[in-house]
Amino acid sequence: MREPLSEDLIERFAHIVGDANALTRPGDQAAYLTEWRDRYSGKTPVVLRPGSTEEVSRILALAYAESVGVVPQGGNTGLVGGQIPSVEGNEIVLSLGRLNKVRDVDAAGGTMIVEAGVTLLGAQNAATAAGRMFPLSLPSEGSAQIGGVLATNAGGTAVLAYGNARSLTLGLEAVLADGRVWHGLRRLKKDNTGYDLRDLLIGSEGTLGVITAACVKLFPAPAERETAIVALQSPQQALKLFRLAEAEAGGALTAFEFWAHRAQAFALDYSPNVRDPFTDAYPWYALIELSHGGSGARVSNTIEPLLTCAHAKGLILDATIARSLRQAEDFWRLREAFSEAQKGAGGSIKHDISVPVARIPEFLERSAVVVERICAGARPVPFGHFGDGNLHYNVSQPEGMDRAAYLALWETMSEAIFELVTELDGSISAEHGIGQMKREALVRYKSQVEIDMMRAVKHALDPKGILNPGKLL
Amino acid sequence: MREPLSEDLIERFAHIVGDANALTRPGDQAAYLTEWRDRYSGKTPVVLRPGSTEEVSRILALAYAESVGVVPQGGNTGLVGGQIPSVEGNEIVLSLGRLNKVRDVDAAGGTMIVEAGVTLLGAQNAATAAGRMFPLSLPSEGSAQIGGVLATNAGGTAVLAYGNARSLTLGLEAVLADGRVWHGLRRLKKDNTGYDLRDLLIGSEGTLGVITAACVKLFPAPAERETAIVALQSPQQALKLFRLAEAEAGGALTAFEFWAHRAQAFALDYSPNVRDPFTDAYPWYALIELSHGGSGARVSNTIEPLLTCAHAKGLILDATIARSLRQAEDFWRLREAFSEAQKGAGGSIKHDISVPVARIPEFLERSAVVVERICAGARPVPFGHFGDGNLHYNVSQPEGMDRAAYLALWETMSEAIFELVTELDGSISAEHGIGQMKREALVRYKSQVEIDMMRAVKHALDPKGILNPGKLL
Repeated sequence: MREPLSEDLIERFAHIVGDANALTRPGDQAAYLTEWRDRYSGKTPVVLRPGSTEEVSRILALAYAESVGVVPQGGNTGLVGGQIPSVEGNEIVLSLGRLNKVRDVDAAGGTMIVEAGVTLLGAQNAATAAGRMFPLSLPSEGSAQIGGVLATNAGGTAVLAYGNARSLTLGLEAVLADGRVWHGLRRLKKDNTGYDLRDLLIGSEGTLGVITAACVKLFPAPAERETAIVALQSPQQALKLFRLAEAEAGGALTAFEFWAHRAQAFALDYSPNVRDPFTDAYPWYALIELSHGGSGARVSNTIEPLLTCAHAKGLILDATIARSLRQAEDFWRLREAFSEAQKGAGGSIKHDISVPVARIPEFLERSAVVVERICAGARPVPFGHFGDGNLHYNVSQPEGMDRAAYLALWETMSEAIFELVTELDGSISAEHGIGQMKREALVRYKSQVEIDMMRAVKHALDPKGILNPGKLL
Repeated sequence: MREPLSEDLIERFAHIVGDANALTRPGDQAAYLTEWRDRYSGKTPVVLRPGSTEEVSRILALAYAESVGVVPQGGNTGLVGGQIPSVEGNEIVLSLGRLNKVRDVDAAGGTMIVEAGVTLLGAQNAATAAGRMFPLSLPSEGSAQIGGVLATNAGGTAVLAYGNARSLTLGLEAVLADGRVWHGLRRLKKDNTGYDLRDLLIGSEGTLGVITAACVKLFPAPAERETAIVALQSPQQALKLFRLAEAEAGGALTAFEFWAHRAQAFALDYSPNVRDPFTDAYPWYALIELSHGGSGARVSNTIEPLLTCAHAKGLILDATIARSLRQAEDFWRLREAFSEAQKGAGGSIKHDISVPVARIPEFLERSAVVVERICAGARPVPFGHFGDGNLHYNVSQPEGMDRAAYLALWETMSEAIFELVTELDGSISAEHGIGQMKREALVRYKSQVEIDMMRAVKHALDPKGILNPGKLL
């Protein structure tokens, strides 16, 4: 544990950003010290809000000289506590929100340079205003910021066709532990000149450097989208349908989301403005989206023959195709209601896991047995990005059970789910990262060789260990 | 410079693989010591051909203990000398060709595990045999091996739609400098558990670890392809046509290759079995390929309305659509003849560069001036992957000039081209890597901060510097 910061040192940090942007009063700091699910909270002598890369650089240089821990923070929407300082109160919080400029939109070149504090929605809007599309999309996109999105390699619903944050990034500007600035804002699709430092920083959760800006890829906005929800008998059918859709629709398949009946039932019970796409109830559902370019010769009903074919092969029980933009929005609103709706059903133990796509059916079958063994009557609410092998395997408490007593089972249940995931060659964190939450699990489920490699890299780029201490590694 | 290896040490290395796979005679070694363009050659006491990951591990452990340099080699098709040992003769060559098993093809899961020594063609064939497609494609695919392809993050003609080697890889197995094996053969599309060691090794040219196997992505083979060659007035028209094709065809656009008239003229003069797609000559050409899934409702002539639209907008001078598979093959054979055909026109100074796509026209205009200044009458033969911003900017000697006198200008011309590329925010090596060839240029054109970061990572993972010494960094 490090020493508390002296008043003098706090004053020197504050001087870099100006007093108005150095928050020391509890009331001013509160929003930066707790995350929205209330699982993590910490303390800090000062929250610094730099207004430029140069100020970030001066803050890091001082922190490095004085060996002070620095916790970078974006929109504070992370789900694993990576953006929250420790409870010791001797780390400074570095909030990137004032670095919020869109520096450049190159519509012809298909690239955009945004600063770390630009929200995901702000980035999407800047692209749209230039007649292009930035496809990364998350439920928290109104507050999540580009810096945090890249530091955690965020995923979302558009990963199937466009990739995660990593695949959408061409270049980075970042400040290193000692305050030096790496000017790596490349705009190139191909560049084989040395080690892939970009992808090393992306997903490193602020432990190797502080991302201050990024160059991201832009795409043509689809001229037309087709959206359908299908009803399925089993995850095995979903797998076959996914492969069929991929083969028939090729690059046009831009979403294949998947959920259990219970996810939908909770949304219908506890969320406003959602409705059942079917009159009957079915065990499983998938949302399929196809996106098309503007080519005049394409017929617009590609999804209909796809579903007809799927029906003829006995892969689907029922299907509803959105007949209007509004209906397509209804479908997506239903899908996006699942996470929040579970609050209505009491305590929820959450897992963000992935397995090889073809193993999703086996995972769902076996995880249900695991859950029942640990807590009889607990209710799995699986949903997620089927095409990425990524499930949000959340488990709601049994009806009538005490919420706190149920949540006390979190570690036990997670451990059992992680064991199963590992046995199926899966990942214990598909898109949310490690943060504080899974730091111990990481060491348990990774090989010693891999942990050693990570520690060697960490030590090479942050020899004093000042960047986001106690996170990830 | 390191000491020569003792007879005893050579014997201990040979013992690991067996005498038949430890090549010490000059005749046996020759094929491993020179590359096909004859620009690089070296010496070695022994070429080791291990038959398993375990043997690779034992070789590295011994090399680490004895501080012996190790040069990993795949199909020896690299173009920058990265796979050739130094002339000092104190580095061992580690040829991965006997690690040539396809360990697993998971058609339903869309993944395949191949060992380092499997050729690119072998990998493609294994995918095809399982009803899937592995899209990475290079002219040298018959001999290039997966290990080398990943170590250099190779590109090729399918990058536009499917990405380079990096984007096609899900997991790696690699042996570290000290002989420990990293079992990182993940099959997951999403995995946010720690640093991206996979992408750090990919493209590191054997300087951070020796890749022994990889898990790569498979795709559905397109049910149908449409191919056309169009004639263009200028690179500016090509840019507009590319953006139009991208907007109209969306994910169906799988190739947009581009070349100058001279590239085609040389191919017609010096290559067998190629023919002119047009009766008239035009200044520039592009090959456009659209790929489609099997959906019955799609009309097959998507490319025709695209070209009609392009013509109406004044973007193309002429167009030929392939009317048969054979004609499409003819088009591709023409495209793939360019590199080899230049030999017929005398000495050629070659550059593998990239710039932001929208800057290709400016690069072509200004580079022509640069070339003429350095060698009046020299003939630029630009061609490449337009959609990736990647040009093979090769320059043939003036007619009648002495070949050696022309090639003596290589450094001067390259330096001038690299200066221009750097001014346009481009890369001095888009897909071939650094190797020996561009090692000095790397230091010249990268920032000191980036070089320092790379050296820190190199030292962290290879503290004795035994992995591919003198390459890349």
